[in-house]
Amino acid sequence: MAKSSTPTETEWGIESLIAIFQRYAGRDSNNRKLSKTEFLTFMNAELAAFTKNQKDPGVLDHMMKKLDLNSDGQLDFQEFLNLIGGLAIACHDSFIKFTHFQK
Amino acid sequence: MAKSSTPTETEWGIESLIAIFQRYAGRDSNNRKLSKTEFLTFMNAELAAFTKNQKDPGVLDHMMKKLDLNSDGQLDFQEFLNLIGGLAIACHDSFIKFTHFQK
Repeated sequence: MAKSSTPTETEWGIESLIAIFQRYAGRDSNNRKLSKTEFLTFMNAELAAFTKNQKDPGVLDHMMKKLDLNSDGQLDFQEFLNLIGGLAIACHDSFIKFTHFQK
Repeated sequence: MAKSSTPTETEWGIESLIAIFQRYAGRDSNNRKLSKTEFLTFMNAELAAFTKNQKDPGVLDHMMKKLDLNSDGQLDFQEFLNLIGGLAIACHDSFIKFTHFQK
């Protein structure tokens, strides 16, 4: 967003979200959506700390279905952001509980 | 999220969003919400490239009201993420249009 100066942390974060989505969505011919295969690749590469702790082998299938709001079998950028937002809120809630517990 | 290894870019991005929110929301006694003053400080510090280009002096007031879904005069983390998500989608759409134009 800033054209000639160093990006702020927020600008960097936004650019990073776009770059991550493009990196995984661009693995097949359609770089506007994450296919199921691309979603699984993304989850196992980027969020392995989450996926490794899941005992239910169907958890990623279930997540994909829940995130795929228009049921087209793929995730667009908005649907991908809902995943990131959901994880961020869960982490933030844990952070608030932890700091509250420490007081 | 990863405890003992280097965070992935996605994990880093999520942690960064939480840290940014905490940095600005923690400027007064309530670190769970961005007050109007904290929101303005955040926008002018982190998204100056956006705010500087606005000709309408009321644009930040209008944004705050639109983001404040429960109308409590403050932004919680979910409402803050809606702002980040909206900006990310706008940037992503521009990126897609630009790459499409280049082909």
